[in-house]
Amino acid sequence: MKLKIAVLAGDGIGPEVTAQAIKTLEAIAEVYDHEFEFESAPVGAVAIDETGNPLPEETLDLCEASDAVLFGAIGDPKYDNDPSAKVRPEQGLLRLRKGLGLFTNIRPIKAYETLIDKSPLKREIIEGTDFTIYRELTGGIYFGEKQLSKDGKEASDLCSYSEKEIERIAHLAFKAARNRKKKLTLVDKANVLETSRLWRKVVTAIGKSYKDVSLDFLFVDNAAMQIILNPSQFDVILTENMFGDIISDEGSVIGGSIGLLASASVGDKSALFEPIHGSYPQAKGKDIANPIASILSAAMLLEHFGLHDEADLIDQAVERALEIGMVTQDLDKDSTYGTRKVGEFIADYILTFD
Amino acid sequence: MKLKIAVLAGDGIGPEVTAQAIKTLEAIAEVYDHEFEFESAPVGAVAIDETGNPLPEETLDLCEASDAVLFGAIGDPKYDNDPSAKVRPEQGLLRLRKGLGLFTNIRPIKAYETLIDKSPLKREIIEGTDFTIYRELTGGIYFGEKQLSKDGKEASDLCSYSEKEIERIAHLAFKAARNRKKKLTLVDKANVLETSRLWRKVVTAIGKSYKDVSLDFLFVDNAAMQIILNPSQFDVILTENMFGDIISDEGSVIGGSIGLLASASVGDKSALFEPIHGSYPQAKGKDIANPIASILSAAMLLEHFGLHDEADLIDQAVERALEIGMVTQDLDKDSTYGTRKVGEFIADYILTFD
Ligand SMILES: [Mg+2]
Ligand SMILES: [Mg+2]
Repeated sequence: MKLKIAVLAGDGIGPEVTAQAIKTLEAIAEVYDHEFEFESAPVGAVAIDETGNPLPEETLDLCEASDAVLFGAIGDPKYDNDPSAKVRPEQGLLRLRKGLGLFTNIRPIKAYETLIDKSPLKREIIEGTDFTIYRELTGGIYFGEKQLSKDGKEASDLCSYSEKEIERIAHLAFKAARNRKKKLTLVDKANVLETSRLWRKVVTAIGKSYKDVSLDFLFVDNAAMQIILNPSQFDVILTENMFGDIISDEGSVIGGSIGLLASASVGDKSALFEPIHGSYPQAKGKDIANPIASILSAAMLLEHFGLHDEADLIDQAVERALEIGMVTQDLDKDSTYGTRKVGEFIADYILTFD
Repeated sequence: MKLKIAVLAGDGIGPEVTAQAIKTLEAIAEVYDHEFEFESAPVGAVAIDETGNPLPEETLDLCEASDAVLFGAIGDPKYDNDPSAKVRPEQGLLRLRKGLGLFTNIRPIKAYETLIDKSPLKREIIEGTDFTIYRELTGGIYFGEKQLSKDGKEASDLCSYSEKEIERIAHLAFKAARNRKKKLTLVDKANVLETSRLWRKVVTAIGKSYKDVSLDFLFVDNAAMQIILNPSQFDVILTENMFGDIISDEGSVIGGSIGLLASASVGDKSALFEPIHGSYPQAKGKDIANPIASILSAAMLLEHFGLHDEADLIDQAVERALEIGMVTQDLDKDSTYGTRKVGEFIADYILTFD
């Protein structure tokens, strides 16, 4: 397969970890005979420094002209600590998501055997956990009309959804379930909210075209409990924007390390892949940042294009690195391995695979 | 102190556990020389059977004429399994909350030493946890205007709050913090929602009158993580209706047993106290239901009227019961103690206290 990949490494540790993801993708290209073309562009604080704009026109153009975007991280303390700053690095990502029409956020949550002891949950609770959250990303209350009365004493936010907005993400989620354990759980609050009832109606109707996928429903307050009580019951969770924000962050801590969590944001024409961790500026240039989340975001990229074997091979390489302790200090404080070394191990594992 | 207490024991195990709470309150009255007058009225399925109404007029009248309501549980399978039923037991509680103007829900969450091993969280995470959630109960998106377009393809829910709605619960939460560890955390999503910004503004202003209480802020997605990662950091959490629904249910599972969780719903003139567990119809009349949540709701009632020593003595009696294994089978499957026996132990502990 031929893929043009825009590389937006961004700030802080972004460039270092993204370099390891590229190394991994190059190894995959070599083994499976794909052609991946990488082209870089600035975003975030780096882009503000260069152009005054956290998302320069040329960067958006490159992303639109590419098959996928490999994203690093953004954020720099010099802007965070300046409350008067009108332009902020984080706007780069928000504008990019909007510009590319990325309406679905995908967050896999998995308990790696070697990291279970780092989880706040007990081993017997977390064992076998492997689910993924499909969160609607451009609708709902975060983007609805906001009002503040003239006297400043009343405020409101409107949550609204259309059938179309629900349908497009629902299809993605059902397709994902089909390639997994064939179970989809819609998280909503249909006993109270009109929008949730619409979600339930639309998702139920679409489910009829995915008869091999079982569909169930969970109220969001119950979901917040079940993710802690019995996370291994889930396969694919589908939910609206705000519920997805809350439960995907809740879910992110149960695996024991944020340094391993990747995510994708997908639209009709574009898709962006990134680690969920931030730019971690204190670690910049020190070769100590964990590259695995970025490498796993590259695996999600491959999965997105139907390259399942290739994605699986990356997962396998990561599992192996964890097993033998080829990890950075965030996972093992006695480790002497750095960002580059871990990336090299994973690329080598792939290159020598047969 | 003289208190008139309406007893709405309700359905299922409600009457059995509420009887133990009354026994406990009678012991307290004896020791501290208070005068508690109890009067019962039907609510829920029992009330539907008797009158056709899950909240008969006389029941609401009694509650309004009383200082507090001691509530059991409602819900009966004969109504749950009848989708055509127009009148449902649960409506009894919703109407009662509305009728009495109960705008604040209070949920204490505490890790009892003897139950820590039942928590899904690891001992070192849960140890020392003792916080309480103040959830706004009558506003926000659950009660806002709902719309469904004529073609059924668009839906919306409006979340709105007024300064006044926020002020009244904020005062209650600050006062509670003053009697606890003097820390209040407002959970909101002020980086996105207009209503959250109003909450933050109003709560910050009120905080100036409670200078002995430290105030901080947490976005709801981060709160969902922190409750799992580090629950012992919290003292009083204050939040709006839906966020409170989600995080109080999330919090309810970290202590290891739902059989110990009490709650209060408070208004300007009335207050209602109840266990958070349901009517558990399968256990009805078997003397196996855990009465502790109901007994602790009686402790919350005393606390509400400023009877701190009395409330503490109940807490102490409960801790003692847990320590020596004077518990029902949900907490220790080998236990031979029943609902009544546990209630008697706690009452006796109080009566023999000096
Ligand atoms: Mg979030
Ligand atoms: Mg709830």
